[in-house]
Amino acid sequence: MKKIAVYTSGGDAPGMNACIRAIVRGAVFHGVEVYGIIRGYNGMIKGDIIPLNSQSVSNIIQRGGTVLKSARSKEFMTPEGRKKAYDQLKSRGIEGLVAIGGNGTFTGAEIFYNEYKIPTVGAPGTIDNDLYGTDYTIGYDTAVNTALDAIDKIRDTADSHDRVFFIEVMGRDSGYIAIQCGIAGGAESVMIPENLSPVSDVVKTLKQGFSRAKSSSIVVVAEGDEEGNAQKVAAKIKKQMDEEVDIRVTTLGHIQRGGAPTAYDRILASRLGLGALEGLLRGEKNVMAGVVNNRLVYTPFHDTITKKKPVADDLLRMVHILSV
Amino acid sequence: MKKIAVYTSGGDAPGMNACIRAIVRGAVFHGVEVYGIIRGYNGMIKGDIIPLNSQSVSNIIQRGGTVLKSARSKEFMTPEGRKKAYDQLKSRGIEGLVAIGGNGTFTGAEIFYNEYKIPTVGAPGTIDNDLYGTDYTIGYDTAVNTALDAIDKIRDTADSHDRVFFIEVMGRDSGYIAIQCGIAGGAESVMIPENLSPVSDVVKTLKQGFSRAKSSSIVVVAEGDEEGNAQKVAAKIKKQMDEEVDIRVTTLGHIQRGGAPTAYDRILASRLGLGALEGLLRGEKNVMAGVVNNRLVYTPFHDTITKKKPVADDLLRMVHILSV
Amino acid sequence: MKKIAVYTSGGDAPGMNACIRAIVRGAVFHGVEVYGIIRGYNGMIKGDIIPLNSQSVSNIIQRGGTVLKSARSKEFMTPEGRKKAYDQLKSRGIEGLVAIGGNGTFTGAEIFYNEYKIPTVGAPGTIDNDLYGTDYTIGYDTAVNTALDAIDKIRDTADSHDRVFFIEVMGRDSGYIAIQCGIAGGAESVMIPENLSPVSDVVKTLKQGFSRAKSSSIVVVAEGDEEGNAQKVAAKIKKQMDEEVDIRVTTLGHIQRGGAPTAYDRILASRLGLGALEGLLRGEKNVMAGVVNNRLVYTPFHDTITKKKPVADDLLRMVHILSV
Amino acid sequence: MKKIAVYTSGGDAPGMNACIRAIVRGAVFHGVEVYGIIRGYNGMIKGDIIPLNSQSVSNIIQRGGTVLKSARSKEFMTPEGRKKAYDQLKSRGIEGLVAIGGNGTFTGAEIFYNEYKIPTVGAPGTIDNDLYGTDYTIGYDTAVNTALDAIDKIRDTADSHDRVFFIEVMGRDSGYIAIQCGIAGGAESVMIPENLSPVSDVVKTLKQGFSRAKSSSIVVVAEGDEEGNAQKVAAKIKKQMDEEVDIRVTTLGHIQRGGAPTAYDRILASRLGLGALEGLLRGEKNVMAGVVNNRLVYTPFHDTITKKKPVADDLLRMVHILSV
Repeated sequence: MKKIAVYTSGGDAPGMNACIRAIVRGAVFHGVEVYGIIRGYNGMIKGDIIPLNSQSVSNIIQRGGTVLKSARSKEFMTPEGRKKAYDQLKSRGIEGLVAIGGNGTFTGAEIFYNEYKIPTVGAPGTIDNDLYGTDYTIGYDTAVNTALDAIDKIRDTADSHDRVFFIEVMGRDSGYIAIQCGIAGGAESVMIPENLSPVSDVVKTLKQGFSRAKSSSIVVVAEGDEEGNAQKVAAKIKKQMDEEVDIRVTTLGHIQRGGAPTAYDRILASRLGLGALEGLLRGEKNVMAGVVNNRLVYTPFHDTITKKKPVADDLLRMVHILSV
Repeated sequence: MKKIAVYTSGGDAPGMNACIRAIVRGAVFHGVEVYGIIRGYNGMIKGDIIPLNSQSVSNIIQRGGTVLKSARSKEFMTPEGRKKAYDQLKSRGIEGLVAIGGNGTFTGAEIFYNEYKIPTVGAPGTIDNDLYGTDYTIGYDTAVNTALDAIDKIRDTADSHDRVFFIEVMGRDSGYIAIQCGIAGGAESVMIPENLSPVSDVVKTLKQGFSRAKSSSIVVVAEGDEEGNAQKVAAKIKKQMDEEVDIRVTTLGHIQRGGAPTAYDRILASRLGLGALEGLLRGEKNVMAGVVNNRLVYTPFHDTITKKKPVADDLLRMVHILSV
Repeated sequence: MKKIAVYTSGGDAPGMNACIRAIVRGAVFHGVEVYGIIRGYNGMIKGDIIPLNSQSVSNIIQRGGTVLKSARSKEFMTPEGRKKAYDQLKSRGIEGLVAIGGNGTFTGAEIFYNEYKIPTVGAPGTIDNDLYGTDYTIGYDTAVNTALDAIDKIRDTADSHDRVFFIEVMGRDSGYIAIQCGIAGGAESVMIPENLSPVSDVVKTLKQGFSRAKSSSIVVVAEGDEEGNAQKVAAKIKKQMDEEVDIRVTTLGHIQRGGAPTAYDRILASRLGLGALEGLLRGEKNVMAGVVNNRLVYTPFHDTITKKKPVADDLLRMVHILSV
Repeated sequence: MKKIAVYTSGGDAPGMNACIRAIVRGAVFHGVEVYGIIRGYNGMIKGDIIPLNSQSVSNIIQRGGTVLKSARSKEFMTPEGRKKAYDQLKSRGIEGLVAIGGNGTFTGAEIFYNEYKIPTVGAPGTIDNDLYGTDYTIGYDTAVNTALDAIDKIRDTADSHDRVFFIEVMGRDSGYIAIQCGIAGGAESVMIPENLSPVSDVVKTLKQGFSRAKSSSIVVVAEGDEEGNAQKVAAKIKKQMDEEVDIRVTTLGHIQRGGAPTAYDRILASRLGLGALEGLLRGEKNVMAGVVNNRLVYTPFHDTITKKKPVADDLLRMVHILSV
């Protein structure tokens, strides 16, 4: 394999740039030509493809976002779109791909591989950490720390005013961010999609807190909680609290996607980028590089998309014990 | 004057603790006994008043929130409530007060002074910077930097996806936070209550940006903008944009109230706390300590409440020029 | 077991407070009385021991340092000192101990256990990550991120002035911090005690960089590097560089010990604190709780002190590849 | 004036990029062609001069360092060097200059102006804040906050171990950084060049603290203190303390030069950049733009170099009162 390309797709995540850098410098190290595809599948179809070298990725390891940009592509969902994409790669002699992204990215990559057999290896880049085949995804540690920093700030004002705050964090189908920053933020309760934490349980915890003279409380809510988002949940709970409680709601939103990546994310991104590249060069295809128990592993795209990674039960137990 | 008390009231602001520390240590330095009133006027009525000394305020200069807590008090709005408050102070021999807060705090302080003549000096603590009589209020610099940090993070993801973001910052009647973090965040447009920045102007600026191949844009919206909050403004603007633009909205919310105060806020808070205390000891009353052109000045409570501090025109001009 | 005590000893590490909180709240949850020993073995000898409850540990999860304080104790190194310590515990009916600290702490704990048989379980709290029996120690992730933040800042000024910076990070016998923040900071070279990275290799790397028109370079040096500390290493290297290079040295120092712990450290600390406590209650003794491959394990104090945890070779390889 | 150039020179400071951006966008706004000179006077002599436009300065407002780079130039100190520089500018038709830097930069600019009469206006960019003619210099607020953040971290570990820390901050001839982060960091003592704070005074303050059961202390030392740097000062003081105190020294070093600029610095830099540019276009020359009492003023280069801006006495008084 003498010529490869790399692209980012789906929601951006801090550390994607560190991953791109590792892939590019790894390719240079192994004597392979490397290209960057701009705006994911969109750029693949349009031929928005540029050569990269060691200096192209200087001074980006610490930057949030992705220098290759990202976009959704409806056209790639059609056979005609994929044909165009293939022709663009073919005409440039690109023999292999590294795809950085999440569920949607790998769904596209699997279809494309099955049709055109261009070897593709993925690197998991998504703040949600909801991909099977890796203990951690690139961007997750940064997103958790960003949300945690926000929770610490809100705790200051919650304490000063004896308030209950419902804080909504990202995670449409997954409570990973919520559970981690719930524990780290000292939350009284955490509501996540994976777990039936009915409103009545949260009410009970809050009431117990007040009876022990806790004057402020934090409830972290994953955006995808089955009970509805933070605003709705807060409204329900307000009704069930006897005494008059001052309840506020904050939705952290897109700040969780940006910012300089943490050390953990930069190292994970470097390792997974290099792992994806070297896997590709060794003949891996249609798989995602991941880290499980500190070891590099490759999991078929199909499994990463269809299998579900559970949230550890002991984390839920910890929230419960530590809020006594 | 041998015995005084300090309290915080209204919305909390980073730096209030640094201000309390300066008042307490200043009192110790000048040989005056000092008390802390818990939860503002509420604690004054209930007699929730504790003695403070130099060590009570150790290691709080860097903490957000207020160790004296804050609360709204409906009872203080009644003559009976204020009578109770007076009796509590009287019974403890408290001869003077330092009030840390904003508009509402000083409104209460003025009424109370007019009725009971206990000398009171205020220190301006509010993130909004909307008080006449001081160039800066305690908490403002921190709130601006917190909002700015969020804007920097959102810029990362806006750039990666070529999106337009509407970011709502605090400031119900005042665009100070919005204008400062608009300029510092490199925003394409800023919408504030003091200025008629009609939706059509913002549309024009955004369109010009797109015509010059700007791929992402940030519009900072003060929560009190006359055109409605960020969600409403974004909806209006989306309708007026010809091309298909990917527009997102984020409301920063209560994170702006918390966090460790900046150097500027700690120094300002120390200076104003000490200034309020030493003014009180020298015979000032019914006034707020402020900093105007780097000098300590005292302004009657009445003026701080009724007069309006304008946003500097040259700042609005800067947003316009710098987004070319 | 109905009554236990917890103490911190040795160099403080961010997350120790989160660990104390988990132990205390875990004890409350399990109906066990819990005491805090102030200043480690020093307070054990002097009987500086206080009762703790759920509220004692409110609002400390986010604080650096240790609320129980830490100190070195020469007296505990003597049989007489340990006898006094035992009498203090005995007289209070304390039946078990949780020790938070590093090498020195566990050395003391092992001797004490062998003499007096009070069951003791350790939790690894040290920024150096050099303890056998756990993949990560409490405080390590925070220290790495603090050092990384400093490296990012120094990169700004290094780039502006085309300089080579030698940055010394903590790690007397261990290169963990250096290697992690070397990779994450995009360093051109990393010098650590575990690895013979002779000065001549670093010179070669720097020269190659200059030949590829890299205008600035970062070399991260562990304080314990066998080639001497950053100042000495920089002086040696300056002599071997042909061209005139502008070399600067910065020693990061004690900032690496402080600051609010990261999410990772707070969760790890909570998990290890709870793990140590629940191990103790289940009958574990003379062991340290650790996390290996995401699972909680207990390792004899003796092994944690005498065995050596290697730095992963693939990390050193990564530094080399990624600086091309 | 139809063609101008901008350069940065001397030590870099956070906010220089925001200043460059304001100058470039201001020039575009006013229809003036603008060039960037790389590496200050060095690039002026070599003709390392590039055209800039609005997009050249996109997305740099938040970056530390200077995209135009900086360097010292011995050649510019000679008449021959300056002749070459003039020829380079002349050949490109550059009619005016904006110089961003400190003392050294403006010394060069004044000599050059006197010889060749190319109108030049300066913008004060230096973290030291030691320039006459402006209340604040670009980079100062960021440097103070960076140092403060480090002091907060060190306070954590100082408290845990009951230690005295001597922390050296930047400021060779000026105690501005030291005094501000001394007050904001709650330091027990501050030692600065402008003030004879003899070792004996510091010893007295520390002893008083210990007598009041303060267990830890912070002394901030400006690098230029007449008593010697932090290491030397700490050694002297250790000898004069009766009891055994655990004294540590940390030199913050170059981290103070880097990092994303604060809101204050970005706004100040934008305002001064625009002010320098518009002054130049209006006919100002041989002057520096500054902000005094919130108003834009122009001060002759000669005065900025030769006059001394005093540290406010009330700040020194505050350190004293607040450490009681």
